[in-house]
Amino acid sequence: MSKRSSPPAKYADLRAVFINSTLKPSPEPSHTALLMGVSEEILAAQGVAVEHIRAADYLLAPGVQTDMTEHGFERDDWPGIYARVQSADILVLGTPIWLGERSSICSRIIERLYAHSGEVNDRGQYVYYGKVGGCIVTGNEDGIKHVAMGVLYSLQHIGYTIPPQADAGWIGEAGPGPSYGDQAEDGSRVGFDNEFTQRNVTFMTWNLLHLARMLKDAGGIPAYGNQSAEWDAGNRFDNPNPEHR
Amino acid sequence: MSKRSSPPAKYADLRAVFINSTLKPSPEPSHTALLMGVSEEILAAQGVAVEHIRAADYLLAPGVQTDMTEHGFERDDWPGIYARVQSADILVLGTPIWLGERSSICSRIIERLYAHSGEVNDRGQYVYYGKVGGCIVTGNEDGIKHVAMGVLYSLQHIGYTIPPQADAGWIGEAGPGPSYGDQAEDGSRVGFDNEFTQRNVTFMTWNLLHLARMLKDAGGIPAYGNQSAEWDAGNRFDNPNPEHR
Amino acid sequence: MSKRSSPPAKYADLRAVFINSTLKPSPEPSHTALLMGVSEEILAAQGVAVEHIRAADYLLAPGVQTDMTEHGFERDDWPGIYARVQSADILVLGTPIWLGERSSICSRIIERLYAHSGEVNDRGQYVYYGKVGGCIVTGNEDGIKHVAMGVLYSLQHIGYTIPPQADAGWIGEAGPGPSYGDQAEDGSRVGFDNEFTQRNVTFMTWNLLHLARMLKDAGGIPAYGNQSAEWDAGNRFDNPNPEHR
Amino acid sequence: MSKRSSPPAKYADLRAVFINSTLKPSPEPSHTALLMGVSEEILAAQGVAVEHIRAADYLLAPGVQTDMTEHGFERDDWPGIYARVQSADILVLGTPIWLGERSSICSRIIERLYAHSGEVNDRGQYVYYGKVGGCIVTGNEDGIKHVAMGVLYSLQHIGYTIPPQADAGWIGEAGPGPSYGDQAEDGSRVGFDNEFTQRNVTFMTWNLLHLARMLKDAGGIPAYGNQSAEWDAGNRFDNPNPEHR
Repeated sequence: MSKRSSPPAKYADLRAVFINSTLKPSPEPSHTALLMGVSEEILAAQGVAVEHIRAADYLLAPGVQTDMTEHGFERDDWPGIYARVQSADILVLGTPIWLGERSSICSRIIERLYAHSGEVNDRGQYVYYGKVGGCIVTGNEDGIKHVAMGVLYSLQHIGYTIPPQADAGWIGEAGPGPSYGDQAEDGSRVGFDNEFTQRNVTFMTWNLLHLARMLKDAGGIPAYGNQSAEWDAGNRFDNPNPEHR
Repeated sequence: MSKRSSPPAKYADLRAVFINSTLKPSPEPSHTALLMGVSEEILAAQGVAVEHIRAADYLLAPGVQTDMTEHGFERDDWPGIYARVQSADILVLGTPIWLGERSSICSRIIERLYAHSGEVNDRGQYVYYGKVGGCIVTGNEDGIKHVAMGVLYSLQHIGYTIPPQADAGWIGEAGPGPSYGDQAEDGSRVGFDNEFTQRNVTFMTWNLLHLARMLKDAGGIPAYGNQSAEWDAGNRFDNPNPEHR
Repeated sequence: MSKRSSPPAKYADLRAVFINSTLKPSPEPSHTALLMGVSEEILAAQGVAVEHIRAADYLLAPGVQTDMTEHGFERDDWPGIYARVQSADILVLGTPIWLGERSSICSRIIERLYAHSGEVNDRGQYVYYGKVGGCIVTGNEDGIKHVAMGVLYSLQHIGYTIPPQADAGWIGEAGPGPSYGDQAEDGSRVGFDNEFTQRNVTFMTWNLLHLARMLKDAGGIPAYGNQSAEWDAGNRFDNPNPEHR
Repeated sequence: MSKRSSPPAKYADLRAVFINSTLKPSPEPSHTALLMGVSEEILAAQGVAVEHIRAADYLLAPGVQTDMTEHGFERDDWPGIYARVQSADILVLGTPIWLGERSSICSRIIERLYAHSGEVNDRGQYVYYGKVGGCIVTGNEDGIKHVAMGVLYSLQHIGYTIPPQADAGWIGEAGPGPSYGDQAEDGSRVGFDNEFTQRNVTFMTWNLLHLARMLKDAGGIPAYGNQSAEWDAGNRFDNPNPEHR
């Protein structure tokens, strides 16, 4: 056991949002929700305010605008979800795997997050700056890393910071079979005792906490060299003059 | 122009390594090196010690061990490159695009970085913890984002922190054509005045600086909840007991 | 000009379905539809019956079942689209690129196609056997090849045959800018005269025709070594007995 | 058992090349070679001439030219491998998975195949037209589908036809563990009795045979609408005049 028995900081001022992109609406059970729950419990044990959103319970209009009701759609639940995302320091996207890819609902979520990528915070940085992101993937066919590549890429591209080892997942042996949390023949639940998966989800969660703490204490990412209005105004932040290159 | 005319911190104690994975050995010109050079110049202007390594000039044996001369290969230049990577706070991998993918040399570099993923620092974390990573991609066919997904994923998976917007690249319109820095008919050099590319490489560089500064000042990522020996010893860091799930 | 001035066969008995996965419902213009239209015109000139479906005009319930109204959803337009897909010899999926990925609607289409992957034709092969598939991608950010990788992979995985060079697309230089068919400053429409794009969409279309002709004339893929019921019944088709390996 | 007890055709005039991209040179055992061997045995049982090439035993210079000794490299074994690829009707690329990606050697092979993508056969089509391609993947971490996406995409892009279900692979449950063919505690060899993997490799092999047979009998892909010299000479093959679009 560790000699350091307590965490290096307090985290009770932090907020986290977990968005589950299972294709199944509530109250159907979700394997992905089960693994996300492990991370949520770790956060909750540290006093972090955790919200779990099941995207399939909402009507998220297609498009890359912030509110599609202004673009011809009758209903769009995205603005409400976005408000929750923006209130949080930590965002974790969870998704199942279908044909080796994240779910269509996960892609929808990312498209809608992206819709805000042109907005800036009060320091002129993209609105997701200063937040941290992670990814949880389950399936009964392979694709954890492939799905995580795309999800984490999207998050960093719109402004999230990605801590070390910010993805975790579970799949079984190649071929059809049980999904995370399904009951095995011996009564146990598959994946629950998988050391690799449980360790990864734990490391991911703590690294999200560490970076979120660090960024919050620093007041976010320093606002220099990363503000589009500054760039557009001609400030080059040491980018060399092409004529001298 | 920005009212804040100077950076928020000093960076002259930082070190950066840029590894260029072009398929061409020196002294052949490399388009990727040109774009990497923009980032290198920004860092150098802040006093960061920058090293540029062209991987094609070295003999990097295939395998996922730290030194392949211990596994039957006569020569392996990787240990020397690894020492430089380990001395640095910032790692930027640069690669061309071939058939939509990173170069085979870029994959070789990542395989060899991965060989060390089981090693730990003096706090029991993976050896790349506390460092930051980014990615630069050029090509005359498309694939910047796809290549960056894989490269940045690999870096975070082995322990690097990925700052916001940590990738940059240049490609031209679909189809054959000039690569970054090639002379255009009007005498200009393509991509040099591409606002999107130049802004992205600038933002990437400053975000690498900001996070590297923050992590160095903090003494790295806090060592709690992310040490494999602790996990193996049974410390669960609030991961709930499966029997209670 | 070619000495052979006429095609090597007749194709008027063939049917093609093009599914456009733009996020925009009709009647909004779709860049992707414009490029798909080039392929559609080539097919139509050969007498092929071509149907163009804009997926955003339909309500496609999430899930991986063939008819989600049997699984709690009030409405599901998929069965009608599936009937059209099944009536066709050629399927072309078109999609825009968002953050380097295919659209969420394209993923939805593939999830629903996949729902039928357990069904078999009258020879015991998966239902998509004997058909050919292709892919058309447009965007103002890069990702043609990445998107095509996933789309074509999915199609072959569920039973489609993929002819040579079965993808085509258009993107402009890195950064924001016009999409395929947008009017340029000189009045021309971007991409319309891009030799690479126009050649690729033409080659793709003819290769779809050639393979569709060949497969139709052959009565599909020969039914031997590729029927799951046969496998399940113990027929091994020369797969060596593991005990002898 | 099937009523049809014999294959629908003869295949003894066909040739197949399997390239194994394991990072390990001979005589080290390769898990990937074991699974490739299943497909090879099926082909051999039909009289197909099968060649197995372990790429790690050769010196394949980096670059995208057909013979790198003409570009400054002292040695390049690629031309010899290319001659064998060109003599074959069927190409199967096998690769392990590292960090969710194909091996660097697999990427090297694809880069070198790509070097010939500008060459044409005697009918003016790209040189790989008329051949069929498949993919076999093993690993102890996930990524079969992701790797297959990239490999099969590359093959179709340079001219190969991809039959239905042209990929197969084996991985175990998430986390470290045995690779294909490793001995399990009960003395069995992992993956050997995996129905999903064995069925997929069998279906893949037969579909390669069926399409290779069909293409060989047809004298390849019909040469119309897919010859670059024709396109360059102005033949548009029904691609509509942009001015009329």
